[in-house]
Amino acid sequence: MVLLALMQANSAVLDITANCAAVDDAARTAAAAGAQLLLTPELFPVGYAPGRLRTDFDPATLPALREALAGIARRHNIALVYSLPAVTPAGEWHISATLVDESGDELLSYGKVHLFGPDERAAFASAAAAPGVVEFHGLKTSLVICYDIEFPESARAAAVRGAELLLVPTALAGGFDAVPKVLVRARALENQLTVAYANHTGVEGSYDFHGGSIVAGPDGAVLAEAGPGAELLFAELGEPSNAAADPAEGAGSADRADDPEAAVAYLRDRRPDIYRSWDV
Amino acid sequence: MVLLALMQANSAVLDITANCAAVDDAARTAAAAGAQLLLTPELFPVGYAPGRLRTDFDPATLPALREALAGIARRHNIALVYSLPAVTPAGEWHISATLVDESGDELLSYGKVHLFGPDERAAFASAAAAPGVVEFHGLKTSLVICYDIEFPESARAAAVRGAELLLVPTALAGGFDAVPKVLVRARALENQLTVAYANHTGVEGSYDFHGGSIVAGPDGAVLAEAGPGAELLFAELGEPSNAAADPAEGAGSADRADDPEAAVAYLRDRRPDIYRSWDV
Repeated sequence: MVLLALMQANSAVLDITANCAAVDDAARTAAAAGAQLLLTPELFPVGYAPGRLRTDFDPATLPALREALAGIARRHNIALVYSLPAVTPAGEWHISATLVDESGDELLSYGKVHLFGPDERAAFASAAAAPGVVEFHGLKTSLVICYDIEFPESARAAAVRGAELLLVPTALAGGFDAVPKVLVRARALENQLTVAYANHTGVEGSYDFHGGSIVAGPDGAVLAEAGPGAELLFAELGEPSNAAADPAEGAGSADRADDPEAAVAYLRDRRPDIYRSWDV
Repeated sequence: MVLLALMQANSAVLDITANCAAVDDAARTAAAAGAQLLLTPELFPVGYAPGRLRTDFDPATLPALREALAGIARRHNIALVYSLPAVTPAGEWHISATLVDESGDELLSYGKVHLFGPDERAAFASAAAAPGVVEFHGLKTSLVICYDIEFPESARAAAVRGAELLLVPTALAGGFDAVPKVLVRARALENQLTVAYANHTGVEGSYDFHGGSIVAGPDGAVLAEAGPGAELLFAELGEPSNAAADPAEGAGSADRADDPEAAVAYLRDRRPDIYRSWDV
Protein backbone atom coordinates (compact mmCIF):
# COMPACT_ATOMS: atom_id res chain seq x y z
CA MET A 1 0.00 0.00 0.00
CA VAL A 2 1.24 3.46 -0.94
CA LEU A 3 -0.32 6.70 0.28
CA LEU A 4 0.22 9.40 -2.31
CA ALA A 5 -0.04 13.16 -1.61
CA LEU A 6 -0.59 15.74 -4.37
CA MET A 7 0.26 19.37 -3.70
CA GLN A 8 -2.18 21.74 -5.43
CA ALA A 9 -1.02 25.27 -4.70
CA ASN A 10 -0.19 28.72 -6.04
CA SER A 11 3.44 29.36 -6.87
CA ALA A 12 5.05 32.82 -6.72
CA VAL A 13 6.95 33.42 -9.96
CA LEU A 14 10.70 33.45 -9.21
CA ASP A 15 10.18 33.64 -5.44
CA ILE A 16 12.06 30.40 -4.96
CA THR A 17 12.44 30.77 -1.21
CA ALA A 18 8.69 31.10 -0.71
CA ASN A 19 7.93 28.23 -3.09
CA CYS A 20 10.42 25.89 -1.42
CA ALA A 21 8.95 26.81 1.96
CA ALA A 22 5.53 25.84 0.61
CA VAL A 23 6.90 22.50 -0.63
CA ASP A 24 8.54 21.98 2.77
CA ASP A 25 5.21 22.65 4.50
CA ALA A 26 3.35 20.27 2.21
CA ALA A 27 6.01 17.59 2.68
CA ARG A 28 5.75 17.91 6.47
CA THR A 29 1.95 17.61 6.40
CA ALA A 30 1.97 14.77 3.87
CA ALA A 31 4.58 12.81 5.81
CA ALA A 32 2.71 13.32 9.08
CA ALA A 33 -0.39 11.88 7.39
CA GLY A 34 1.61 8.79 6.43
CA ALA A 35 2.19 9.55 2.75
CA GLN A 36 5.22 7.95 1.08
CA LEU A 37 5.37 10.42 -1.81
CA LEU A 38 4.54 14.08 -2.48
CA LEU A 39 3.82 15.05 -6.11
CA THR A 40 4.19 18.79 -6.84
CA PRO A 41 3.03 20.74 -9.95
CA GLU A 42 5.03 21.58 -13.10
CA LEU A 43 7.82 24.11 -12.48
CA PHE A 44 6.39 24.77 -9.00
CA PRO A 45 9.65 25.81 -7.24
CA VAL A 46 10.27 28.57 -9.82
CA GLY A 47 6.69 29.39 -10.87
CA TYR A 48 5.00 28.67 -14.18
CA ALA A 49 6.19 31.57 -16.37
CA PRO A 50 8.13 30.21 -19.35
CA GLY A 51 9.21 33.56 -20.80
CA ARG A 52 10.34 35.09 -17.49
CA LEU A 53 12.15 31.91 -16.51
CA ARG A 54 14.14 31.97 -19.70
CA THR A 55 15.18 35.60 -19.22
CA ASP A 56 15.37 35.95 -15.41
CA PHE A 57 16.14 32.51 -13.99
CA ASP A 58 19.83 31.69 -13.58
CA PRO A 59 20.40 27.99 -14.30
CA ALA A 60 23.65 28.17 -12.34
CA THR A 61 21.40 28.08 -9.26
CA LEU A 62 19.91 24.70 -10.24
CA PRO A 63 22.34 22.42 -8.36
CA ALA A 64 21.70 24.25 -5.07
CA LEU A 65 17.96 24.28 -5.72
CA ARG A 66 17.94 20.54 -6.40
CA GLU A 67 19.93 20.01 -3.20
CA ALA A 68 17.40 22.11 -1.26
CA LEU A 69 14.53 19.99 -2.63
CA ALA A 70 16.40 16.76 -1.84
CA GLY A 71 16.85 18.17 1.68
CA ILE A 72 13.08 18.57 2.03
CA ALA A 73 12.61 14.89 1.13
CA ARG A 74 15.30 13.85 3.64
CA ARG A 75 14.05 16.14 6.39
CA HIS A 76 10.52 14.74 6.25
CA ASN A 77 11.43 11.23 5.15
CA ILE A 78 9.12 11.36 2.12
CA ALA A 79 9.79 10.84 -1.57
CA LEU A 80 9.22 13.90 -3.74
CA VAL A 81 8.48 14.67 -7.39
CA TYR A 82 9.53 18.18 -8.35
CA SER A 83 9.70 19.93 -11.73
CA LEU A 84 12.36 22.46 -12.78
CA PRO A 85 14.01 23.88 -15.85
CA ALA A 86 17.00 21.77 -16.88
CA VAL A 87 19.81 22.73 -19.22
CA THR A 88 21.24 20.00 -21.43
CA PRO A 89 24.96 19.68 -22.19
CA ALA A 90 24.12 21.15 -25.63
CA GLY A 91 22.65 24.23 -23.92
CA GLU A 92 18.98 23.47 -24.58
CA TRP A 93 16.48 24.33 -21.88
CA HIS A 94 14.05 21.51 -21.06
CA ILE A 95 11.13 21.29 -18.65
CA SER A 96 12.07 18.41 -16.37
CA ALA A 97 10.58 16.34 -13.58
CA THR A 98 12.56 14.40 -11.00
CA LEU A 99 11.60 11.71 -8.51
CA VAL A 100 13.81 11.60 -5.41
CA ASP A 101 13.35 9.03 -2.68
CA GLU A 102 12.96 9.76 1.03
CA SER A 103 16.76 10.01 1.32
CA GLY A 104 16.83 12.68 -1.38
CA ASP A 105 18.49 10.34 -3.88
CA GLU A 106 17.37 10.69 -7.48
CA LEU A 107 15.42 7.66 -8.72
CA LEU A 108 14.18 8.98 -12.08
CA SER A 109 14.21 12.08 -14.23
CA TYR A 110 12.23 13.00 -17.33
CA GLY A 111 12.18 15.81 -19.93
CA LYS A 112 8.85 17.10 -21.31
CA VAL A 113 8.27 15.99 -24.90
CA HIS A 114 5.09 17.91 -25.83
CA LEU A 115 5.56 21.63 -25.23
CA PHE A 116 2.32 23.61 -24.92
CA GLY A 117 1.67 26.83 -26.81
CA PRO A 118 3.92 29.60 -28.11
CA ASP A 119 5.26 30.65 -24.66
CA GLU A 120 6.67 27.24 -23.84
CA ARG A 121 7.97 26.68 -27.33
CA ALA A 122 9.77 30.05 -27.29
CA ALA A 123 11.44 29.38 -23.94
CA PHE A 124 12.11 25.64 -24.03
CA ALA A 125 13.13 22.85 -26.39
CA SER A 126 11.33 19.53 -26.30
CA ALA A 127 13.03 16.43 -24.96
CA ALA A 128 12.78 13.21 -26.94
CA ALA A 129 13.41 10.29 -24.57
CA ALA A 130 10.59 7.89 -23.69
CA PRO A 131 9.40 8.02 -20.07
CA GLY A 132 11.52 5.77 -17.87
CA VAL A 133 10.23 3.37 -15.24
CA VAL A 134 11.62 2.77 -11.76
CA GLU A 135 10.51 0.63 -8.80
CA PHE A 136 9.04 2.68 -5.93
CA HIS A 137 7.58 0.88 -2.88
CA GLY A 138 6.80 -2.10 -5.10
CA LEU A 139 5.10 0.00 -7.82
CA LYS A 140 6.70 0.47 -11.22
CA THR A 141 6.61 4.23 -11.43
CA SER A 142 7.01 6.66 -14.32
CA LEU A 143 6.87 10.41 -15.02
CA VAL A 144 5.45 12.62 -17.77
CA ILE A 145 4.63 16.34 -17.64
CA CYS A 146 1.39 18.29 -18.30
CA TYR A 147 0.56 18.39 -22.06
CA ASP A 148 2.31 15.00 -22.47
CA ILE A 149 -0.61 13.23 -20.77
CA GLU A 150 -3.05 14.61 -23.38
CA PHE A 151 -1.29 12.46 -25.99
CA PRO A 152 -2.06 8.76 -25.65
CA GLU A 153 1.36 7.91 -27.06
CA SER A 154 3.27 9.10 -23.96
CA ALA A 155 1.29 7.16 -21.36
CA ARG A 156 1.36 4.14 -23.67
CA ALA A 157 5.16 4.35 -23.87
CA ALA A 158 5.31 4.30 -20.05
CA ALA A 159 2.83 1.43 -19.85
CA VAL A 160 4.61 -0.82 -22.34
CA ARG A 161 7.74 -0.26 -20.23
CA GLY A 162 5.82 -1.69 -17.28
CA ALA A 163 4.56 1.43 -15.49
CA GLU A 164 1.86 0.84 -12.86
CA LEU A 165 1.90 4.41 -11.51
CA LEU A 166 2.30 7.49 -13.71
CA LEU A 167 3.07 10.77 -11.89
CA VAL A 168 2.24 13.97 -13.76
CA PRO A 169 3.24 17.46 -12.60
CA THR A 170 1.05 19.87 -14.58
CA ALA A 171 0.21 23.53 -15.17
CA LEU A 172 -3.24 23.41 -16.74
CA ALA A 173 -4.93 26.79 -17.17
CA GLY A 174 -8.63 27.15 -16.30
CA GLY A 175 -11.21 26.20 -18.91
CA PHE A 176 -9.76 22.82 -19.84
CA ASP A 177 -11.66 20.63 -17.34
CA ALA A 178 -11.97 17.81 -19.86
CA VAL A 179 -8.24 17.18 -19.53
CA PRO A 180 -8.37 15.78 -15.98
CA LYS A 181 -11.99 14.57 -16.15
CA VAL A 182 -11.75 12.75 -19.49
CA LEU A 183 -8.18 12.42 -20.76
CA VAL A 184 -6.42 11.61 -17.48
CA ARG A 185 -9.06 9.00 -16.64
CA ALA A 186 -8.76 7.56 -20.16
CA ARG A 187 -4.97 7.25 -19.87
CA ALA A 188 -5.41 5.33 -16.62
CA LEU A 189 -8.09 3.00 -17.98
CA GLU A 190 -6.64 2.34 -21.44
CA ASN A 191 -3.28 1.43 -19.86
CA GLN A 192 -4.71 -0.13 -16.68
CA LEU A 193 -2.41 1.88 -14.43
CA THR A 194 -2.83 4.68 -11.87
CA VAL A 195 -2.33 8.29 -13.00
CA ALA A 196 -1.76 11.13 -10.52
CA TYR A 197 -1.99 14.67 -11.96
CA ALA A 198 -1.06 17.65 -9.73
CA ASN A 199 -1.93 21.18 -10.86
CA HIS A 200 -1.31 24.78 -9.81
CA THR A 201 -4.09 27.03 -8.55
CA GLY A 202 -4.54 30.79 -8.81
CA VAL A 203 -2.78 33.41 -10.91
CA GLU A 204 0.89 33.10 -11.90
CA GLY A 205 2.07 35.72 -14.37
CA SER A 206 -0.38 35.71 -17.25
CA TYR A 207 -1.90 32.32 -16.35
CA ASP A 208 -4.91 31.53 -14.19
CA PHE A 209 -4.96 27.99 -12.83
CA HIS A 210 -8.10 26.31 -11.46
CA GLY A 211 -6.66 23.23 -9.77
CA GLY A 212 -8.68 20.09 -10.44
CA SER A 213 -5.80 17.75 -9.56
CA ILE A 214 -6.88 14.15 -9.87
CA VAL A 215 -5.85 10.55 -9.24
CA ALA A 216 -7.43 7.95 -11.54
CA GLY A 217 -7.14 4.20 -10.98
CA PRO A 218 -6.48 1.35 -13.43
CA ASP A 219 -10.25 0.97 -14.07
CA GLY A 220 -10.60 4.67 -14.88
CA ALA A 221 -12.31 5.43 -11.57
CA VAL A 222 -11.57 8.72 -9.80
CA LEU A 223 -9.65 7.83 -6.61
CA ALA A 224 -9.28 11.46 -5.49
CA GLU A 225 -10.12 14.83 -7.01
CA ALA A 226 -9.34 18.37 -5.84
CA GLY A 227 -11.48 21.50 -6.11
CA PRO A 228 -10.25 24.75 -7.68
CA GLY A 229 -8.30 26.10 -4.67
CA ALA A 230 -5.17 25.21 -2.70
CA GLU A 231 -5.37 21.67 -1.37
CA LEU A 232 -3.24 18.74 -0.30
CA LEU A 233 -4.92 15.76 -1.96
CA PHE A 234 -4.40 12.17 -0.80
CA ALA A 235 -4.97 8.86 -2.58
CA GLU A 236 -4.33 5.39 -1.22
CA LEU A 237 -3.07 3.00 -3.89
CA GLY A 238 -3.81 -0.71 -3.64
CA GLU A 239 -1.50 -3.68 -3.71
CA PRO A 240 0.84 -3.63 -6.67
CA SER A 241 0.07 -6.41 -9.12
CA ASN A 242 3.34 -8.24 -8.55
CA ALA A 243 2.32 -8.79 -4.92
CA ALA A 244 -0.16 -11.24 -6.46
CA ALA A 245 2.73 -13.66 -7.01
CA ASP A 246 1.41 -15.04 -3.70
CA PRO A 247 -1.35 -17.39 -4.89
CA ALA A 248 -3.54 -16.40 -1.93
CA GLU A 249 -3.61 -12.92 -3.47
CA GLY A 250 -4.68 -14.17 -6.90
CA ALA A 251 -7.86 -12.12 -7.04
CA GLY A 252 -5.81 -8.98 -6.77
CA SER A 253 -4.38 -9.56 -10.21
CA ALA A 254 -7.70 -9.97 -12.00
CA ASP A 255 -7.68 -6.47 -13.46
CA ARG A 256 -4.04 -6.42 -14.53
CA ALA A 257 -3.25 -5.68 -18.12
CA ASP A 258 -1.05 -8.72 -18.58
CA ASP A 259 -3.31 -11.28 -16.89
CA PRO A 260 -4.11 -14.03 -19.43
CA GLU A 261 -7.48 -14.61 -17.72
CA ALA A 262 -8.67 -11.00 -17.71
CA ALA A 263 -11.56 -10.16 -20.06
CA VAL A 264 -10.15 -6.71 -20.74
CA ALA A 265 -6.38 -6.54 -20.98
CA TYR A 266 -5.38 -3.68 -23.20
CA LEU A 267 -1.64 -4.23 -23.15
CA ARG A 268 -2.15 -7.92 -23.98
CA ASP A 269 -4.71 -7.22 -26.72
CA ARG A 270 -3.08 -4.28 -28.48
CA ARG A 271 -1.50 -4.97 -31.88
CA PRO A 272 1.81 -3.10 -32.16
CA ASP A 273 2.77 -5.15 -35.21
CA ILE A 274 -0.31 -3.89 -37.03
CA TYR A 275 0.08 -0.30 -35.77
CA ARG A 276 3.55 -0.13 -37.24
CA SER A 277 2.13 -0.96 -40.66
CA TRP A 278 -0.32 1.97 -40.24
CA ASP A 279 2.50 4.49 -39.89
CA VAL A 280 0.85 6.54 -37.14
CA MET B 1 -24.97 20.25 -41.11
CA VAL B 2 -25.49 16.50 -40.74
CA LEU B 3 -28.18 14.90 -38.59
CA LEU B 4 -26.98 11.53 -37.38
CA ALA B 5 -29.25 8.78 -36.04
CA LEU B 6 -28.00 5.91 -33.85
CA MET B 7 -30.07 2.76 -33.55
CA GLN B 8 -29.84 1.25 -30.05
CA ALA B 9 -31.91 -1.94 -30.05
CA ASN B 10 -32.11 -5.62 -29.20
CA SER B 11 -31.21 -8.03 -31.98
CA ALA B 12 -32.68 -11.55 -32.26
CA VAL B 13 -29.83 -13.99 -32.80
CA LEU B 14 -30.05 -15.41 -36.36
CA ASP B 15 -33.57 -14.02 -36.91
CA ILE B 16 -32.36 -11.99 -39.85
CA THR B 17 -35.82 -11.17 -41.14
CA ALA B 18 -36.84 -9.62 -37.83
CA ASN B 19 -33.57 -7.74 -37.46
CA CYS B 20 -33.75 -6.31 -40.99
CA ALA B 21 -37.34 -5.26 -40.33
CA ALA B 22 -36.11 -3.42 -37.22
CA VAL B 23 -33.39 -1.67 -39.25
CA ASP B 24 -36.00 -0.78 -41.89
CA ASP B 25 -38.23 0.72 -39.17
CA ALA B 26 -35.37 2.71 -37.68
CA ALA B 27 -34.32 3.95 -41.12
CA ARG B 28 -37.86 5.11 -41.88
CA THR B 29 -38.12 6.98 -38.56
CA ALA B 30 -34.62 8.46 -38.84
CA ALA B 31 -35.19 9.63 -42.42
CA ALA B 32 -38.56 11.14 -41.50
CA ALA B 33 -36.77 13.12 -38.77
CA GLY B 34 -34.34 14.47 -41.35
CA ALA B 35 -31.33 12.30 -40.55
CA GLN B 36 -28.79 11.72 -43.33
CA LEU B 37 -27.26 8.60 -41.76
CA LEU B 38 -28.34 5.70 -39.56
CA LEU B 39 -25.62 3.95 -37.53
CA THR B 40 -26.55 0.44 -36.35
CA PRO B 41 -24.78 -1.76 -33.75
CA GLU B 42 -22.09 -4.42 -34.32
CA LEU B 43 -23.42 -7.52 -36.12
CA PHE B 44 -26.98 -6.26 -35.60
CA PRO B 45 -28.61 -7.92 -38.64
CA VAL B 46 -27.43 -11.37 -37.50
CA GLY B 47 -27.28 -10.84 -33.72
CA TYR B 48 -24.21 -10.68 -31.51
CA ALA B 49 -23.39 -14.36 -30.94
CA PRO B 50 -19.90 -15.12 -32.30
CA GLY B 51 -19.94 -18.86 -31.65
CA ARG B 52 -23.43 -19.48 -33.07
CA LEU B 53 -22.72 -17.29 -36.09
CA ARG B 54 -19.66 -19.33 -36.92
CA THR B 55 -21.55 -22.62 -36.71
CA ASP B 56 -25.08 -21.66 -37.86
CA PHE B 57 -24.74 -18.65 -40.18
CA ASP B 58 -24.33 -19.44 -43.87
CA PRO B 59 -22.00 -16.88 -45.46
CA ALA B 60 -23.46 -17.75 -48.85
CA THR B 61 -26.44 -15.63 -47.77
CA LEU B 62 -24.25 -12.51 -47.34
CA PRO B 63 -24.66 -11.02 -50.84
CA ALA B 64 -28.45 -11.12 -50.57
CA LEU B 65 -28.32 -9.73 -47.04
CA ARG B 66 -26.09 -6.86 -48.13
CA GLU B 67 -28.48 -6.17 -51.00
CA ALA B 68 -31.43 -6.14 -48.58
CA LEU B 69 -29.62 -3.61 -46.36
CA ALA B 70 -28.70 -1.46 -49.38
CA GLY B 71 -32.38 -1.60 -50.31
CA ILE B 72 -33.32 -0.18 -46.90
CA ALA B 73 -30.98 2.77 -47.52
CA ARG B 74 -32.46 3.34 -50.99
CA ARG B 75 -36.06 2.94 -49.87
CA HIS B 76 -35.74 5.58 -47.16
CA ASN B 77 -33.12 7.72 -48.89
CA ILE B 78 -30.74 7.56 -45.92
CA ALA B 79 -27.14 6.42 -45.63
CA LEU B 80 -26.60 3.36 -43.43
CA VAL B 81 -23.76 1.80 -41.46
CA TYR B 82 -24.31 -1.91 -40.90
CA SER B 83 -22.04 -4.61 -39.46
CA LEU B 84 -21.90 -8.23 -40.65
CA PRO B 85 -19.57 -11.21 -40.75
CA ALA B 86 -17.40 -11.12 -43.85
CA VAL B 87 -15.38 -13.95 -45.35
CA THR B 88 -12.06 -13.09 -46.96
CA PRO B 89 -10.82 -14.73 -50.17
CA ALA B 90 -8.48 -16.76 -47.91
CA GLY B 91 -11.53 -18.08 -46.02
CA GLU B 92 -11.02 -16.07 -42.82
CA TRP B 93 -14.11 -14.74 -41.05
CA HIS B 94 -13.90 -11.06 -40.11
CA ILE B 95 -16.31 -8.77 -38.28
CA SER B 96 -16.96 -6.00 -40.78
CA ALA B 97 -18.72 -2.66 -40.97
CA THR B 98 -19.95 -1.01 -44.15
CA LEU B 99 -21.12 2.51 -44.95
CA VAL B 100 -23.56 2.70 -47.85
CA ASP B 101 -24.94 5.99 -49.11
CA GLU B 102 -28.62 6.83 -49.59
CA SER B 103 -28.53 5.09 -52.96
CA GLY B 104 -27.28 1.90 -51.31
CA ASP B 105 -23.84 2.25 -52.91
CA GLU B 106 -20.91 1.20 -50.75
CA LEU B 107 -18.70 4.13 -49.71
CA LEU B 108 -16.43 2.42 -47.17
CA SER B 109 -15.85 -0.92 -45.50
CA TYR B 110 -13.72 -1.91 -42.52
CA GLY B 111 -12.64 -5.12 -40.75
CA LYS B 112 -12.35 -5.24 -36.92
CA VAL B 113 -8.73 -5.30 -35.77
CA HIS B 114 -9.12 -5.83 -31.99
CA LEU B 115 -11.22 -8.91 -31.29
CA PHE B 116 -12.74 -9.06 -27.81
CA GLY B 117 -12.56 -12.08 -25.57
CA PRO B 118 -12.33 -15.83 -26.23
CA ASP B 119 -15.72 -16.08 -28.04
CA GLU B 120 -14.79 -13.57 -30.73
CA ARG B 121 -11.27 -14.92 -31.07
CA ALA B 122 -12.57 -18.47 -31.51
CA ALA B 123 -15.06 -17.48 -34.21
CA PHE B 124 -13.27 -14.71 -36.09
CA ALA B 125 -9.83 -13.64 -37.29
CA SER B 126 -8.68 -10.05 -36.87
CA ALA B 127 -8.33 -7.77 -39.87
CA ALA B 128 -5.18 -5.66 -40.19
CA ALA B 129 -5.96 -2.70 -42.44
CA ALA B 130 -6.02 0.83 -41.03
CA PRO B 131 -9.44 2.50 -40.95
CA GLY B 132 -10.16 4.20 -44.26
CA VAL B 133 -11.64 7.67 -44.69
CA VAL B 134 -14.32 8.79 -47.16
CA GLU B 135 -16.16 12.07 -47.74
CA PHE B 136 -19.77 12.00 -46.53
CA HIS B 137 -21.88 15.19 -46.75
CA GLY B 138 -18.69 17.24 -46.44
CA LEU B 139 -17.38 15.29 -43.43
CA LYS B 140 -14.37 13.02 -43.72
CA THR B 141 -15.84 9.86 -42.26
CA SER B 142 -14.26 6.66 -40.94
CA LEU B 143 -15.28 3.38 -39.31
CA VAL B 144 -13.96 1.21 -36.49
CA ILE B 145 -15.79 -1.49 -34.48
CA CYS B 146 -16.43 -1.91 -30.73
CA TYR B 147 -13.22 -2.94 -28.88
CA ASP B 148 -11.17 -1.05 -31.50
CA ILE B 149 -12.25 2.29 -30.00
CA GLU B 150 -10.81 1.31 -26.60
CA PHE B 151 -7.33 1.40 -28.16
CA PRO B 152 -6.11 4.95 -28.86
CA GLU B 153 -4.09 3.66 -31.80
CA SER B 154 -7.16 2.92 -33.97
CA ALA B 155 -8.86 6.31 -33.64
CA ARG B 156 -5.47 7.97 -34.10
CA ALA B 157 -4.95 6.09 -37.36
CA ALA B 158 -8.31 7.37 -38.60
CA ALA B 159 -7.53 10.93 -37.44
CA VAL B 160 -4.13 11.15 -39.10
CA ARG B 161 -5.88 10.04 -42.31
CA GLY B 162 -8.12 13.09 -41.93
CA ALA B 163 -11.23 11.67 -40.23
CA GLU B 164 -13.64 14.25 -38.79
CA LEU B 165 -16.38 11.73 -37.96
CA LEU B 166 -15.72 8.24 -36.63
CA LEU B 167 -18.67 5.83 -36.69
CA VAL B 168 -18.49 2.88 -34.30
CA PRO B 169 -20.94 -0.05 -34.30
CA THR B 170 -20.48 -1.78 -30.95
CA ALA B 171 -21.65 -4.66 -28.75
CA LEU B 172 -20.59 -3.61 -25.25
CA ALA B 173 -21.88 -5.83 -22.45
CA GLY B 174 -23.26 -4.22 -19.28
CA GLY B 175 -20.81 -3.20 -16.55
CA PHE B 176 -18.33 -1.35 -18.75
CA ASP B 177 -19.84 2.17 -18.56
CA ALA B 178 -16.39 3.77 -18.52
CA VAL B 179 -15.97 2.78 -22.16
CA PRO B 180 -18.55 5.23 -23.55
CA LYS B 181 -18.28 7.74 -20.71
CA VAL B 182 -14.48 8.00 -20.59
CA LEU B 183 -12.78 6.27 -23.52
CA VAL B 184 -15.16 7.31 -26.33
CA ARG B 185 -15.08 10.93 -25.12
CA ALA B 186 -11.28 10.78 -24.88
CA ARG B 187 -10.95 9.47 -28.46
CA ALA B 188 -13.07 12.40 -29.68
CA LEU B 189 -11.15 15.02 -27.68
CA GLU B 190 -7.61 13.72 -28.22
CA ASN B 191 -8.22 13.57 -31.98
CA GLN B 192 -10.56 16.58 -32.16
CA LEU B 193 -13.17 14.71 -34.15
CA THR B 194 -16.73 13.46 -33.55
CA VAL B 195 -17.24 9.85 -32.42
CA ALA B 196 -20.63 8.11 -32.65
CA TYR B 197 -20.90 4.77 -30.81
CA ALA B 198 -24.09 2.67 -31.23
CA ASN B 199 -24.73 -0.29 -28.90
CA HIS B 200 -27.15 -3.17 -28.49
CA THR B 201 -29.58 -3.40 -25.60
CA GLY B 202 -31.05 -6.41 -23.81
CA VAL B 203 -30.11 -10.08 -23.86
CA GLU B 204 -28.69 -11.79 -26.96
CA GLY B 205 -27.47 -15.34 -26.41
CA SER B 206 -25.17 -15.25 -23.37
CA TYR B 207 -24.68 -11.47 -23.47
CA ASP B 208 -26.62 -8.74 -21.67
CA PHE B 209 -26.29 -5.30 -23.24
CA HIS B 210 -27.14 -2.06 -21.44
CA GLY B 211 -27.14 0.46 -24.29
CA GLY B 212 -25.42 3.72 -23.38
CA SER B 213 -24.83 4.70 -27.02
CA ILE B 214 -23.12 8.06 -27.22
CA VAL B 215 -21.99 10.82 -29.58
CA ALA B 216 -18.99 12.86 -28.40
CA GLY B 217 -17.83 16.05 -30.12
CA PRO B 218 -14.31 17.27 -31.00
CA ASP B 219 -14.01 19.00 -27.58
CA GLY B 220 -14.94 15.80 -25.76
CA ALA B 221 -18.44 17.07 -24.93
CA VAL B 222 -21.36 14.63 -24.95
CA LEU B 223 -23.59 15.64 -27.88
CA ALA B 224 -26.12 12.86 -27.27
CA GLU B 225 -26.34 9.88 -24.92
CA ALA B 226 -28.84 7.03 -24.71
CA GLY B 227 -30.21 5.27 -21.66
CA PRO B 228 -30.10 1.50 -21.14
CA GLY B 229 -33.14 0.57 -23.27
CA ALA B 230 -34.14 0.63 -26.94
CA GLU B 231 -33.82 4.12 -28.38
CA LEU B 232 -33.25 5.99 -31.61
CA LEU B 233 -30.65 8.62 -30.68
CA PHE B 234 -30.07 11.77 -32.72
CA ALA B 235 -27.11 14.15 -32.85
CA GLU B 236 -26.74 17.22 -35.03
CA LEU B 237 -23.16 17.73 -36.21
CA GLY B 238 -21.87 21.22 -36.93
CA GLU B 239 -20.25 22.65 -40.02
CA PRO B 240 -17.34 20.58 -41.21
CA SER B 241 -14.05 22.40 -40.75
CA ASN B 242 -13.37 22.70 -44.47
CA ALA B 243 -16.47 24.87 -44.81
CA ALA B 244 -14.30 27.42 -42.95
CA ALA B 245 -12.34 27.99 -46.16
CA ASP B 246 -14.81 30.90 -46.43
CA PRO B 247 -13.05 33.64 -44.39
CA ALA B 248 -16.40 34.76 -42.94
CA GLU B 249 -16.53 31.36 -41.29
CA GLY B 250 -13.07 31.67 -39.76
CA ALA B 251 -14.22 31.28 -36.17
CA GLY B 252 -15.58 27.88 -37.05
CA SER B 253 -12.09 26.55 -37.56
CA ALA B 254 -10.72 27.67 -34.19
CA ASP B 255 -10.98 24.25 -32.62
CA ARG B 256 -9.67 22.25 -35.54
CA ALA B 257 -6.70 20.03 -34.98
CA ASP B 258 -4.72 21.43 -37.89
CA ASP B 259 -5.36 25.13 -37.26
CA PRO B 260 -2.00 26.90 -36.77
CA GLU B 261 -3.67 29.45 -34.45
CA ALA B 262 -5.37 26.97 -32.14
CA ALA B 263 -3.98 26.72 -28.60
CA VAL B 264 -4.71 23.02 -28.44
CA ALA B 265 -4.12 21.14 -31.68
CA TYR B 266 -3.27 17.57 -30.94
CA LEU B 267 -2.64 16.40 -34.48
CA ARG B 268 -0.36 19.40 -35.08
CA ASP B 269 1.49 18.99 -31.77
CA ARG B 270 1.97 15.23 -31.69
CA ARG B 271 5.48 13.92 -32.37
CA PRO B 272 5.30 10.82 -34.59
CA ASP B 273 9.05 11.04 -35.29
CA ILE B 274 9.76 10.70 -31.58
CA TYR B 275 7.10 8.00 -31.03
CA ARG B 276 8.74 5.82 -33.67
CA SER B 277 12.00 5.95 -31.69
CA TRP B 278 10.06 4.74 -28.61
CA ASP B 279 8.96 1.53 -30.35
CA VAL B 280 5.43 1.50 -28.94
